[in-house]
Amino acid sequence: MESGTEVTCQYAGMEQTATYITERDGMAVIKLNSGYNIGVDPACLTVVAAPEMTETVGMTIEQNPSLPQLSIISTGGTIASRVDYRTGAVTSQFTADDIMRAIPGLADIARFRSEVLASILSENMTPAIWQTLATSICNEIKNGAEGVIVTHGTDTLAYSAAAVSFMLDTPAPVIFVGSQRSADRPSSDNVMNGLASAAAATSDLGEVAVVMHASTNDDTCAIHRGTRVRKMHTSRRDAFQSLGTAPIGSVAYPSLDVTLSKDAVRRRPDTEPVLSPKLEEKVGLSTFYPGMHPDLIHAFEGYRGLVVSGTGLGHTSAPVIEALRSLTDAGTVVAMTSQCLNGRVCDRVYDTGRDLLAAGVLEGDEMLPEVAYVKLMWVLGQTNDTEEAARLMTTPLRGEFGRCL
Amino acid sequence: MESGTEVTCQYAGMEQTATYITERDGMAVIKLNSGYNIGVDPACLTVVAAPEMTETVGMTIEQNPSLPQLSIISTGGTIASRVDYRTGAVTSQFTADDIMRAIPGLADIARFRSEVLASILSENMTPAIWQTLATSICNEIKNGAEGVIVTHGTDTLAYSAAAVSFMLDTPAPVIFVGSQRSADRPSSDNVMNGLASAAAATSDLGEVAVVMHASTNDDTCAIHRGTRVRKMHTSRRDAFQSLGTAPIGSVAYPSLDVTLSKDAVRRRPDTEPVLSPKLEEKVGLSTFYPGMHPDLIHAFEGYRGLVVSGTGLGHTSAPVIEALRSLTDAGTVVAMTSQCLNGRVCDRVYDTGRDLLAAGVLEGDEMLPEVAYVKLMWVLGQTNDTEEAARLMTTPLRGEFGRCL
Repeated sequence: MESGTEVTCQYAGMEQTATYITERDGMAVIKLNSGYNIGVDPACLTVVAAPEMTETVGMTIEQNPSLPQLSIISTGGTIASRVDYRTGAVTSQFTADDIMRAIPGLADIARFRSEVLASILSENMTPAIWQTLATSICNEIKNGAEGVIVTHGTDTLAYSAAAVSFMLDTPAPVIFVGSQRSADRPSSDNVMNGLASAAAATSDLGEVAVVMHASTNDDTCAIHRGTRVRKMHTSRRDAFQSLGTAPIGSVAYPSLDVTLSKDAVRRRPDTEPVLSPKLEEKVGLSTFYPGMHPDLIHAFEGYRGLVVSGTGLGHTSAPVIEALRSLTDAGTVVAMTSQCLNGRVCDRVYDTGRDLLAAGVLEGDEMLPEVAYVKLMWVLGQTNDTEEAARLMTTPLRGEFGRCL
Repeated sequence: MESGTEVTCQYAGMEQTATYITERDGMAVIKLNSGYNIGVDPACLTVVAAPEMTETVGMTIEQNPSLPQLSIISTGGTIASRVDYRTGAVTSQFTADDIMRAIPGLADIARFRSEVLASILSENMTPAIWQTLATSICNEIKNGAEGVIVTHGTDTLAYSAAAVSFMLDTPAPVIFVGSQRSADRPSSDNVMNGLASAAAATSDLGEVAVVMHASTNDDTCAIHRGTRVRKMHTSRRDAFQSLGTAPIGSVAYPSLDVTLSKDAVRRRPDTEPVLSPKLEEKVGLSTFYPGMHPDLIHAFEGYRGLVVSGTGLGHTSAPVIEALRSLTDAGTVVAMTSQCLNGRVCDRVYDTGRDLLAAGVLEGDEMLPEVAYVKLMWVLGQTNDTEEAARLMTTPLRGEFGRCL
């Protein structure tokens, strides 16, 4: 049977229509209309129709020279994906033509050039790729892109947006966008998110942001600051939320009208981007919990930095404080954040907090634990001086806490 | 100057009224009306009034024998606290009389007996105290308490509520309650939360729950299931939220009318509580992040259980999967949850998830990482058999996922 053949089979007590993908270990792998792949006995499949021909492949899209120039950098996200019937995997499309075919309407917003930076599942994202990514974005802006779209898997999209926020001082919009449902599923958010990201990338914004569905309605995408956003649901299309602050803007759909908040940093056309891509990789993140053995803190010995996600206002047990003290004594920069995710760390209220401060632990203010982690990697990439690192960690640099930028 | 003396001083450019606490290192420690303690030069203080006498001390509260019998177990929470002017610390009051004096109105709801189980900051809560706590609660119910209120610091209140949920199958309400603002602050939530907890403890509920402010208005407390609740703000009074599900009830204020949802488990008057207090302490919790070194997973070697808080649907990087495989090979039970906190783990969609399943990692469904952690301690306290542990971890026992109880 050829990949892409439409078939029917019995599954979960019902006749299901599905797409045949391949045979593996004697089982037929088919994709149900829900988007999930299952393995079934090949004998139970009935052919309905031969594979659909993809007529658009190879067609060249006209790019309108009067529209703004945007760049799309792909890291392996599924925003412009389609199913690879040979493997059953969802693969990314790579050329600007492919992307514009996958998301009709893009050609009315801008001209596009594209770059494949990586093709990974985002849980395999690394600090080394962040450095390459920040460098590529910087080069695109220097080479005339009026905005950059980064397509990214949603698992670690927020970490990457925060990392690039610190590495690159951008005068133009840098828009991270993903898709919670792959393009082959009826509920896919890839087209709306893609169009909204292009609208945001041509807007008056001048900072790193994440553009994703604002609700389960298909009427608005939120524009989240790159240092304030978190994936808050495993599967919903509106999984991304700004924490501790409102989104910095929105994109209406289908009008694609962009609204920016007063707080959003504006585009600075005469300013060059400033790249500071160095990251210290010997930095860790540890979540405290009752019963945690202090040995798990000692596992970070030799690290240059550690972010702790403590309880409440930024607390840990007394034995963990002692372990943190041994790290700071050895020169590790330790910053405290809160697993509450919302609200400010304040270690001056209770004895535990005062003990943490006495142990040399820095207060992470409103920083999300993940954001403090990438910030500390970046800070320790910029300086070897512990006091300067402490100053940078407790100063808002990219709106990661407070109101100042 | 005597502790408790009312004074004025210059602070933050304004004249402030404050309460003198003590002298320490040549500085006067005073408590501002905001509730915060600061150190100032004793010379700049002006005495306004001598310490107020606490006329209520020693007064005995009449308990109405026709009201239901409740027990209050104190673990060091600040719900019935007042300021200790000698140390500036917020201390808990211990006898039933003290508590009833601190929260007028309790005497109209029930008769109370009380027990001081611990007097700790809740970040120092331990699995050993959870065991003592579950045993005490069980005894109180066996000895005729129609409901039990546990006062608890808010930092780890949700962990403790989840732990007791698994350790004790209770036919009567077990209500965890705390206070985000101590009793000496004008915005304290201790009275409303205390009264609402007593109302919930006399209600038709038959499970472990958390009762705290539902919003910043003083009009409703939410009743959260003990296995579905999380502290989601460092300081707001409505910090506690049910995740992935609605609260199981509410208490209106000041009417104290209790409303229970259809899902809430009901009181079972003719059933004895069942205590299974054994916990395995060699269980850990680890949050995955991009750039995480697999050595941090190897730090859990020798553990009987590990809960991972992965990205998205329940993912980690490929090197971390390999480290998890080495743990499962050595007999460690590993369960995957999601740092998204909302939504279901599903490791059958993407290759990474299938690799995790192949490495012997269990899917934690909708369980909060913290809840999966205390559940795994409890499960491994009940059985030495890995397959039975896997079965229990993937079966909803106390509404920690799914709809079944």
